[in-house]
Amino acid sequence: MSSMLGRKIKISVFGESHGAAIGVVIDSLPAGFEIDLDKVNFEMSRRAPGKSKLTTGRQEKDQYEIVSGFFEGKTTGTPLCSMIRNSDTRSGDYSLLKDIVRPGHADLTGKMRYLGANDYRGGGHFSGRLTAPIVFAGAVAKQILEKRGIHIGSHILSLAGVKDKEFDPINVNIDDIKNLKNMTLPLLDPTVEEKMKDEVLKARENLDSVGGIIETVVLNMPGGIGSPIFDSVESVIASGMFSVPAVKGVEFGRGFDIASMKGSEANDEYYLDNGEIKTYSNNNGGILGGITSGAPILFKVAIKPTPSISRPQRSVNVSTMEDTNLEIVGRHDPCILPRAAVVVEAVTALCILDLLAVEEV
Amino acid sequence: MSSMLGRKIKISVFGESHGAAIGVVIDSLPAGFEIDLDKVNFEMSRRAPGKSKLTTGRQEKDQYEIVSGFFEGKTTGTPLCSMIRNSDTRSGDYSLLKDIVRPGHADLTGKMRYLGANDYRGGGHFSGRLTAPIVFAGAVAKQILEKRGIHIGSHILSLAGVKDKEFDPINVNIDDIKNLKNMTLPLLDPTVEEKMKDEVLKARENLDSVGGIIETVVLNMPGGIGSPIFDSVESVIASGMFSVPAVKGVEFGRGFDIASMKGSEANDEYYLDNGEIKTYSNNNGGILGGITSGAPILFKVAIKPTPSISRPQRSVNVSTMEDTNLEIVGRHDPCILPRAAVVVEAVTALCILDLLAVEEV
Amino acid sequence: MSSMLGRKIKISVFGESHGAAIGVVIDSLPAGFEIDLDKVNFEMSRRAPGKSKLTTGRQEKDQYEIVSGFFEGKTTGTPLCSMIRNSDTRSGDYSLLKDIVRPGHADLTGKMRYLGANDYRGGGHFSGRLTAPIVFAGAVAKQILEKRGIHIGSHILSLAGVKDKEFDPINVNIDDIKNLKNMTLPLLDPTVEEKMKDEVLKARENLDSVGGIIETVVLNMPGGIGSPIFDSVESVIASGMFSVPAVKGVEFGRGFDIASMKGSEANDEYYLDNGEIKTYSNNNGGILGGITSGAPILFKVAIKPTPSISRPQRSVNVSTMEDTNLEIVGRHDPCILPRAAVVVEAVTALCILDLLAVEEV
Amino acid sequence: MSSMLGRKIKISVFGESHGAAIGVVIDSLPAGFEIDLDKVNFEMSRRAPGKSKLTTGRQEKDQYEIVSGFFEGKTTGTPLCSMIRNSDTRSGDYSLLKDIVRPGHADLTGKMRYLGANDYRGGGHFSGRLTAPIVFAGAVAKQILEKRGIHIGSHILSLAGVKDKEFDPINVNIDDIKNLKNMTLPLLDPTVEEKMKDEVLKARENLDSVGGIIETVVLNMPGGIGSPIFDSVESVIASGMFSVPAVKGVEFGRGFDIASMKGSEANDEYYLDNGEIKTYSNNNGGILGGITSGAPILFKVAIKPTPSISRPQRSVNVSTMEDTNLEIVGRHDPCILPRAAVVVEAVTALCILDLLAVEEV
Repeated sequence: MSSMLGRKIKISVFGESHGAAIGVVIDSLPAGFEIDLDKVNFEMSRRAPGKSKLTTGRQEKDQYEIVSGFFEGKTTGTPLCSMIRNSDTRSGDYSLLKDIVRPGHADLTGKMRYLGANDYRGGGHFSGRLTAPIVFAGAVAKQILEKRGIHIGSHILSLAGVKDKEFDPINVNIDDIKNLKNMTLPLLDPTVEEKMKDEVLKARENLDSVGGIIETVVLNMPGGIGSPIFDSVESVIASGMFSVPAVKGVEFGRGFDIASMKGSEANDEYYLDNGEIKTYSNNNGGILGGITSGAPILFKVAIKPTPSISRPQRSVNVSTMEDTNLEIVGRHDPCILPRAAVVVEAVTALCILDLLAVEEV
Repeated sequence: MSSMLGRKIKISVFGESHGAAIGVVIDSLPAGFEIDLDKVNFEMSRRAPGKSKLTTGRQEKDQYEIVSGFFEGKTTGTPLCSMIRNSDTRSGDYSLLKDIVRPGHADLTGKMRYLGANDYRGGGHFSGRLTAPIVFAGAVAKQILEKRGIHIGSHILSLAGVKDKEFDPINVNIDDIKNLKNMTLPLLDPTVEEKMKDEVLKARENLDSVGGIIETVVLNMPGGIGSPIFDSVESVIASGMFSVPAVKGVEFGRGFDIASMKGSEANDEYYLDNGEIKTYSNNNGGILGGITSGAPILFKVAIKPTPSISRPQRSVNVSTMEDTNLEIVGRHDPCILPRAAVVVEAVTALCILDLLAVEEV
Repeated sequence: MSSMLGRKIKISVFGESHGAAIGVVIDSLPAGFEIDLDKVNFEMSRRAPGKSKLTTGRQEKDQYEIVSGFFEGKTTGTPLCSMIRNSDTRSGDYSLLKDIVRPGHADLTGKMRYLGANDYRGGGHFSGRLTAPIVFAGAVAKQILEKRGIHIGSHILSLAGVKDKEFDPINVNIDDIKNLKNMTLPLLDPTVEEKMKDEVLKARENLDSVGGIIETVVLNMPGGIGSPIFDSVESVIASGMFSVPAVKGVEFGRGFDIASMKGSEANDEYYLDNGEIKTYSNNNGGILGGITSGAPILFKVAIKPTPSISRPQRSVNVSTMEDTNLEIVGRHDPCILPRAAVVVEAVTALCILDLLAVEEV
Repeated sequence: MSSMLGRKIKISVFGESHGAAIGVVIDSLPAGFEIDLDKVNFEMSRRAPGKSKLTTGRQEKDQYEIVSGFFEGKTTGTPLCSMIRNSDTRSGDYSLLKDIVRPGHADLTGKMRYLGANDYRGGGHFSGRLTAPIVFAGAVAKQILEKRGIHIGSHILSLAGVKDKEFDPINVNIDDIKNLKNMTLPLLDPTVEEKMKDEVLKARENLDSVGGIIETVVLNMPGGIGSPIFDSVESVIASGMFSVPAVKGVEFGRGFDIASMKGSEANDEYYLDNGEIKTYSNNNGGILGGITSGAPILFKVAIKPTPSISRPQRSVNVSTMEDTNLEIVGRHDPCILPRAAVVVEAVTALCILDLLAVEEV
């Protein structure tokens, strides 16, 4: 099941960074849904590299072709396949990496898992490039959700320790979410942008990289969704998040901070507001007992600094089995956070759509 | 799939806190495995409530009966079902809760999900009591893993803000892990025990509760296990963890802290040690690109304070639709951390066994 | 996944013929469904052995206990577990079979599959007795379907070569279906009953057994259900049917006979009947391209003669590895057809309910 | 899950008959397997239409491109995607069919299932053309199986009532199987070929079509594979078979004929042959209790006559809702049996490979 996600609406991702093409098959989409390709293109461009000096120099237009499942402007209900041809691959850049494994990457573990047969060029199937078809699929999922009034937004909560403010856990404005999508660095408090940029440029100068935390909200999620014990909404979303490259932590609501609160502080007490049951707080991030409450779903994911840095690192040549120094020449990406935010949103959209498709009878 | 976990070795959990019985069916266990029932009993007793004044007063012997799949001391390979009759249920205690939803619990979301038909008594299917059959299944899984040399251990890394020291990320001693299993509060640094106990007793006195963080290690995990993109080891374990009641966060290796590190700090550099490839650090928690590296798997889970506290709380009567005060009379559990640690280990064991069963051909 | 069936509404069957108990967990049933236990009891009694001289002498009351998922007369939406304690087991009868494998049974293949560790007594997990919990689950599924107007009926189309008439492929009467459920031998043409009984009694006298064909109809199935390519309705039902013990063939509509028809004869031509599209014939058994058309679903399953006969048979003692003669002393079942019909209906109900739950959004 | 098959080694099929392309993603293939492309090409050419006057005139080279998962001649272990561009589509031919539903086809049920949004041209996703990527995937699976000594062969057991002889149920010769693959009509008794061809040509002349029965054998299948109750080998294979277009029946071993045998005739008695346990007969087709015995797996599938015939048929215009006559002009395929045999083999190979991958630990 390795590269498949979902239970009812299921995606199958294929391709390698330097192979012929990458793509995705989406199985069991609802039939007759009109896809707005402009919106898809917008999401694709948000993820595409090479747009600012904050990111990698690799230029990819990520021009996709829908080869099936889309007829007269609408989904057919049968598998929708979208494919992106690889172009600016420069395989030569990576020849060095055939034998010298990059620290922090899947190079060594990939060799172990695939008996040395996997395509090592540019990370192969585990390249961040494979997030392009995921963003495509997520863009379709997002549109279906938005038609139902459900909106997903993300911002960079912290970057190299520089902090943005958090989403208001109860009142999140849809327009604020929409604005985030147009920012180079999606932030709730634009005054921290310069500090963050400085951190990125400093890291680039040092041939190093930075990580950070993405905070995501799902607005207008209906209550009563989720199937505990094991198909809790948190399980489904977390499982998806840990498939996003570089994610090392996921927390809902107050997350790790809730661990040092008292029960009387952590519990979200109830009250009636014009006949509707509401909570005074949202420490549980919109999910109780694995089931949505109708409050905004809120979660954070920790993104580690991009491992492919140009600073010299100690490594091993697995062919000669010798200690060696590794110096990655060429482009590197000092900060994947803005693009990671897009991928996080896409995977969230796919998880939410699947949850709704599975659970609602 | 709600109460089923696993892809190849699959469990199906059933029962309600105040129903006739609770239990688990384990499907596709290897055949001919000799189960050491003493070890199972030991794990069951670790989880059982009522053992110390730090925990709930509910007395449950958790006496299980294996009703199938176990013949002449060995697994048959066909479904193993274990059942525990409920005894000390005192349904009266919970009659109040039929209409008044407890903050922080699944009472309200459960009503939404199950259209008001779910068994509300004692949390019904979402009671912590349902972790007893999970611990049974985990105890069997652990034994199978231990036969392969794989050991799982957990300790309370923090409790109400009081901190234990962390596992050494590279050298974890199996004996230390074993010792943890005999402690009332499993700790690496026993000198913090008193402080933690004080916090629990203080919370109990205040009719309140505490939360904390569990840290878990998986020792001797073979490298090369895990199937990214979507069946990463992190995805599988995190999905399991978020099914453990009260878990609100999961992080691997340095987790959220890695987000403020530089790439050059976060990357685990390689070196050769007697022909074996090792890393100088283990910031990634034994998992790279979703695949195990052979280093110890390390992760932490945030446990929120038990929501059922006896302090008065603001709530709503969903039958009369009126604001109301809720005061839970009777037993309450100021600290579930020691028991949560046992459940975390059990679910970890089930996830690891399933990963090995699925991936190794 | 061995003993689990279903994709959304999933059952997990456990137990052995001579173990402590057998049972089933049904996961993801709709919440709040009022189960009519009289109807369940009726289905259980239809399957129970020992009712007529046409069948085995084993007496089992099949008294089930619902241990979870059922509260105040309704399903809770969380797993429903039903358990049946074994009573009349007479393990002694089977001690001989520990080493001598019965032809036509799973004795030898079971030993291969489970490395000799499976419970051999009475067929263990592969005993026909395990169909009791399946019939329980099917009885619940049937009620849910009937509330939607969907009815399932079966009759014995042939027994030892004696033939009943077939269902009218287009006009099946619901009352006829209901009558079938009260017959010792469910038949559309009662005049063949005596001949069939004679065949059974003759086989019993000869210490032999008979097989036959069951024909099943699903009435009022909505059109547009089924997800080809691979989740065709035929795939789902056939997969279920081949899990019913002794089934060796499944065919839909004209089945194998359609293979010698011409396209012009086989095609079901369309016409309008008061604004509704109908077909002149139903050679395809209500399924076209794997999707239901709204016409009655019709299929037949071939049931092989019960393999445990009392006539001497050539076999092998797998312990001493010697050729030997096997003579099974005691009860044997010359004809399982009436009970098989009940099991076929139960599995059909589970498959149809799951198809509807998965497909309808 | 509509267009996905398999549990561990999983395929996802996409495309429409007249869309841009068709293809398949194979997930979780073993890594490092050297694919012999000549063998793949051979299988593709066996399925390709337009080779003899017995079949459709549509000319498709079925030139596939492997776009991922294949590196330096070997599988990478990550998803292998193969794509075939559509060329000779002549959409005009089918414009008539937009509104007039073809009897015996999925035209009407497809409209019901996909709310009228599916691509109707040439059957869209349900075109026989979609079997091309399935044959590709099957060709890869076959090679992996053959490396383990497992061979799959099929012949036309009957065509329009003209019968070939059956496989010897115990001794099947590998060379005979291989020869079948080179025949225009794969037959064990070549003397019936002329009669069969006459039937096809006669049907073509009458603007009609013929059906038939395919018999398939799996040689050297290891014993002990299969996971009853519900993952029996018969369930897995039958589920796959009913996904092959036009299949209306599946039977194993003696199949429907076993229903009129006595237990003493049907049981396959055991004897020792040089220390190996063998059976005197193979009425059960190599499967007992859902588990392989090591004897050849034998099964038959009924293929209905191709529904798209050129004879005038009664139908309905679903746009105007009027009765109408349908006359399909242009190419039609009087006999799909030789190609169906290739598809049956491919799906069998995929099912067997998946069974082995899932079950063998």
